[in-house]
Amino acid sequence: MEVEIKKNERIDDLQINNLKIIQNKNEFCFGMDAVLLSDFAKEIKNNTNILDLGTGTGVLPILLSGKTKNTKIVGIEIQKNMAEMATRSINLNNLENRIKIINDDIKNINNFFDNYYFDVIITNPPYKKINSGLINENEGKLISRHEIKCNLEDIIITTKKMLKDKGTLYMVHRPERIADICELLRKYKIEPKLIKFVYPKINKEANLVLIKAVKNANKFLKVEKPLIVYKENGEYTEEILKIYNKI
Amino acid sequence: MEVEIKKNERIDDLQINNLKIIQNKNEFCFGMDAVLLSDFAKEIKNNTNILDLGTGTGVLPILLSGKTKNTKIVGIEIQKNMAEMATRSINLNNLENRIKIINDDIKNINNFFDNYYFDVIITNPPYKKINSGLINENEGKLISRHEIKCNLEDIIITTKKMLKDKGTLYMVHRPERIADICELLRKYKIEPKLIKFVYPKINKEANLVLIKAVKNANKFLKVEKPLIVYKENGEYTEEILKIYNKI
Repeated sequence: MEVEIKKNERIDDLQINNLKIIQNKNEFCFGMDAVLLSDFAKEIKNNTNILDLGTGTGVLPILLSGKTKNTKIVGIEIQKNMAEMATRSINLNNLENRIKIINDDIKNINNFFDNYYFDVIITNPPYKKINSGLINENEGKLISRHEIKCNLEDIIITTKKMLKDKGTLYMVHRPERIADICELLRKYKIEPKLIKFVYPKINKEANLVLIKAVKNANKFLKVEKPLIVYKENGEYTEEILKIYNKI
Repeated sequence: MEVEIKKNERIDDLQINNLKIIQNKNEFCFGMDAVLLSDFAKEIKNNTNILDLGTGTGVLPILLSGKTKNTKIVGIEIQKNMAEMATRSINLNNLENRIKIINDDIKNINNFFDNYYFDVIITNPPYKKINSGLINENEGKLISRHEIKCNLEDIIITTKKMLKDKGTLYMVHRPERIADICELLRKYKIEPKLIKFVYPKINKEANLVLIKAVKNANKFLKVEKPLIVYKENGEYTEEILKIYNKI
């Protein structure tokens, strides 16, 4: 499909199934966290309904469309310009039959779907508390990165409401929030089952955490082998190269 | 001091300051977890009051006596034979002036000390829930390993009660309990500040977790660089050798 590319936008190759994404260099662009999350969630079954909370550029739905078969993926995004750009990326990839982008607050998802509709929820939410970190970005980036329009508890309440019994949540977040995440998941009976920490190097503190949690599951979790991003010499590790389909 | 060594007991060298410990080969013997915890807690300040909840053979008080100066350390242990053996180890090291072993339930610690008495609490508690794991051990080992006489919430309630405002808890536990730990620490306002996962090898899931938490502290935590125990070839990593004073 012929798709309009606007000022400051570019088309990036997602390096999987020839999928592409439109991004605006002045707005939030997807990063390694989205790629690692889509890999962490690769066990998602075919023929399932997936919801991406705060989809941004639509990168997670597009990546998941390449990693799963016959899934129906919904991305909801509060920022109008991002949702519109995500919709054009869906069109660019001819994925209109599999991915639907909704421009609304995640708290209004009930206007579009019944409770307990989704098998899987995935999210790369804003990481930072409103009052933390340097706030010197444009409004769009602020909303993508800080808990201005939705916070962690909103994400988990929406997950509780929209996920089927025994449905799965996949989330990427900052390690500094792991206690918040465990506390809130327990509060809403979404049991953390698998946690994987991402360390930039083997001798650096973790800077990302991947979490799999299952609604109403039994209490038992694993902390998976560490994911190290760079070797001592600054090159990507084999695991990262594999995730990026480079080997 | 001349100290009695009973049947099935042996004296082990702790490889620090010529410290020694009595252990009984048929009972619970200290492991790498105690050594890693004492290293994780090495920032403990001098001239502080330290409480070890469930001290067992007394290994943590003895190791900490070698790593800190002018600290007063109390170990409380419910098992009479273990507490008695720990007391003999204290005597063997001539540490009666720094370490006191109490044979009682941790819930009775108030009979010996006022609330908020301690600067630091350290604990290597039973890891397993009562109904989990294979229960084919002798009664002493069962009590050391399973939450029969005290569970995680008892540990954290006692910590809350006995720790000064802004006092520090150091704990080693199993990663499978990390959500329980975060949930309970938050419940009792002991804020997790530092978490370190121990992975047996770089490509294995974590099998221990070290936690530092501070009573009534602000919310912000770090997940420290991973601690890897063995290299690919099965030898100890440099970090482990350093902790064991081998390099």
